[in-house]
Amino acid sequence: MTNALLVVAHGSRRAQSNDEVRALTDQVRAIAGDRFTAIECAFLELAPPSIPDGLERLIARGATHVTVLPYFLAAGRHVAEDIPTEVAQTRAAHPHVAIEIAPYLGTSDALPGLLLDTIGAAS
Amino acid sequence: MTNALLVVAHGSRRAQSNDEVRALTDQVRAIAGDRFTAIECAFLELAPPSIPDGLERLIARGATHVTVLPYFLAAGRHVAEDIPTEVAQTRAAHPHVAIEIAPYLGTSDALPGLLLDTIGAAS
Repeated sequence: MTNALLVVAHGSRRAQSNDEVRALTDQVRAIAGDRFTAIECAFLELAPPSIPDGLERLIARGATHVTVLPYFLAAGRHVAEDIPTEVAQTRAAHPHVAIEIAPYLGTSDALPGLLLDTIGAAS
Repeated sequence: MTNALLVVAHGSRRAQSNDEVRALTDQVRAIAGDRFTAIECAFLELAPPSIPDGLERLIARGATHVTVLPYFLAAGRHVAEDIPTEVAQTRAAHPHVAIEIAPYLGTSDALPGLLLDTIGAAS
């Protein structure tokens, strides 16, 4: 099994915001070790690559198992409906590839502490 | 000086999503100790209270210094323009209250590790 990771963010009209997600993905890649053979990002809207395009890239590179990580803080419509809908398209086109959607970032128990740390670093 | 914290999220049409932010705020309050005399949340859109209403509530409770924490992952238009614009309205109405906007959550160096931990907890 060849595991890959796709970090999925909302996407913004501001290029700087999308670049932040790409930089975050680079940082994840730097610390992930050999857990994933490929780590990329994709955007739900407003920036390339789209989720299907991001998945296709990973599959073209040999991924047989892809974890989709929603880089979202709350389970709004995007997490609950839009991301599953887009993933379902690629699942249908590649039935031999296992594509799993991980819990979105906002489910992390570590977030409250991280929030306070973020303020602490600033003051 | 009486410090208060306002966690500002985007807001969603899904009540469940807004409730997650309220629960997160409760968790922050539970671990913050005596660092802030009051901790509340507010929403940029789609859910109450608004940012000005949230700030007014804290000021009515005696806050003389309010830290606004943008619960956002990337510096899109909301973080770069909309939150500062809303905060400026309250600053103008309450010149004796210091209202500071902290770095948004997405600036945290701990996020890449948190992402991998979130996946790890699921698999």
